[in-house]
Amino acid sequence: MAPVGPHPAVADVRRAVREALADVPKDALVMVACSGGADSLALAAALAFVAPRMGLRAGLLTVDHQLQPGSAQRARTVVDIGKTRLDLHPAEVLTVTVGTEGGPEAAAREARYQALAEAADKHQAQVVLLGHTRDDQAETVLLGLARGSGVRSLSGMAARSGRYRRPFLDIPRATTVRACQALDLVPWDDPHNEDPRYTRVRVRYRVLPVLEAELGPGVAEALARTARMAREDADALDEWAESAYQNCALSDIPGSVTLAVPELEKLPDAVRRRVLRRAAIAAGAPSGALSAAHILAVDGLVTRWHGQKAVDLPGGLSAVRRYGTLIVAISPIA
Amino acid sequence: MAPVGPHPAVADVRRAVREALADVPKDALVMVACSGGADSLALAAALAFVAPRMGLRAGLLTVDHQLQPGSAQRARTVVDIGKTRLDLHPAEVLTVTVGTEGGPEAAAREARYQALAEAADKHQAQVVLLGHTRDDQAETVLLGLARGSGVRSLSGMAARSGRYRRPFLDIPRATTVRACQALDLVPWDDPHNEDPRYTRVRVRYRVLPVLEAELGPGVAEALARTARMAREDADALDEWAESAYQNCALSDIPGSVTLAVPELEKLPDAVRRRVLRRAAIAAGAPSGALSAAHILAVDGLVTRWHGQKAVDLPGGLSAVRRYGTLIVAISPIA
Repeated sequence: MAPVGPHPAVADVRRAVREALADVPKDALVMVACSGGADSLALAAALAFVAPRMGLRAGLLTVDHQLQPGSAQRARTVVDIGKTRLDLHPAEVLTVTVGTEGGPEAAAREARYQALAEAADKHQAQVVLLGHTRDDQAETVLLGLARGSGVRSLSGMAARSGRYRRPFLDIPRATTVRACQALDLVPWDDPHNEDPRYTRVRVRYRVLPVLEAELGPGVAEALARTARMAREDADALDEWAESAYQNCALSDIPGSVTLAVPELEKLPDAVRRRVLRRAAIAAGAPSGALSAAHILAVDGLVTRWHGQKAVDLPGGLSAVRRYGTLIVAISPIA
Repeated sequence: MAPVGPHPAVADVRRAVREALADVPKDALVMVACSGGADSLALAAALAFVAPRMGLRAGLLTVDHQLQPGSAQRARTVVDIGKTRLDLHPAEVLTVTVGTEGGPEAAAREARYQALAEAADKHQAQVVLLGHTRDDQAETVLLGLARGSGVRSLSGMAARSGRYRRPFLDIPRATTVRACQALDLVPWDDPHNEDPRYTRVRVRYRVLPVLEAELGPGVAEALARTARMAREDADALDEWAESAYQNCALSDIPGSVTLAVPELEKLPDAVRRRVLRRAAIAAGAPSGALSAAHILAVDGLVTRWHGQKAVDLPGGLSAVRRYGTLIVAISPIA
């Protein structure tokens, strides 16, 4: 008789966690951020299995956002599953108060990450695992695409960012559901995940299924692949732009940045526009207020020069061309 | 009484053509490729208006693909509109025979562009205008996204490519329809443009409307903007990869390319992978058969080296690491 291995979905989630933790030193504490949904519950179970075999300690954090009736009870249930079913220690509820800034989704995220960071510090956790799946990644790419703000906005979520790691970015959500079933873990379905007032929910239930139906079943995978490549591309271009900026900047103090036009002219469009954006931010422009149209207008001073007036920029700045230099400074520039 | 200007849609299409032709020398011949559809008919009308005012000559080409009954008659009608209504000379039907290679859409495109190129040569046309609109561009980006093959596949169609120019990449298709109405030109609706067996048609009628409904009405514009930025990014990265390849290549003859690993290790992921792809093609790998997975495996010889075996590549090649070099050559490598 062949030995009975784990269910394929369970094997998949465990392998993903093992690979994500390969470089973590022995005895380090790894904590999973677990909402009780199928993705993060499968992640908690995989961590519980993998960690002791890798000589790691494993704990659990769950956030009570206090946004729905019964949320406190549910958070306690998640901690209870963590402690008694999965032997994760410490396992802790983090109770947060969600503000309103930037809309309900952004405010909840802000509160959640702050609580996770504080708890990770307190417990000296080296790594915090997040349960985002390939479907979440595909949704993020589509949301970025709808903004139309370039390759960085297509790059989705990072597999690693500081202490956070996302082992499931290549794992379909359906695999996490099957893993929970195979392990007899009952996930909790957040009603917010079904509320069509959230753009992300509409992308999940209305947009992605249409894309899969019309373009083929590989769309979520293609979007996740696009995210990975877009992130690498954006990183490389940022690196180039940073060194080009150092090369172009004749002086750079807050309130006044001067760039050498002949150096700017040597750069490809994609790099030159990143350098101009970098210069505007160095001069004091708030990055959120700086649009592609602003950068294009400044770029015109370099590449389509015909004696234009100063270009106004957010933050009370303006850009002018003076002889062979481009000056971004607090306006009016004398 | 205020002077009566042209309809806003007519003004938009004329402005787009004027800007696209700003750098064309006087007396040059500009020809429009016109199917008789709203987009290319509006383009023909705009060219007819703009060209004489810019000192340019203007002609028309229409392709009879011989794929539908009555196509010859229709092509003659388009030429007739060009000659008598729009005063475009020469105006000519190009009759082509469409093969089967690569599917019906690809074969028709191949035959069409070959006929356009030959006719442009014959008439010594300096520029051939194509009527692709912002909606066509958005569709192209979505088709590229579904392939998931990176930033180049998101970059859509070029505004300029050799003698071809696409003045309408920022103009909505609806504007071209309104311009035809305002000018009392009756466009011909190609039934192929409604046939849901074509992926592009499904993107047009089933995917984009859902995206607009769920993500907001600016999606087509955001996709077109993404295309422009993705193209610039891809060009810049190709430029970097080309100079990095020159720097890494110790020897490069068809059948055997040798790269210096320490130089490869200095490059960001996005550039190093492009260099590896470039090397495989220089060694003789057919570019169409070279997948991201192949490149990733070769990359492992550089960045995750633990004594791996040779990596097989299309075209009977393989890649091995020998001391500080990476060799891509006809296998087996001795």
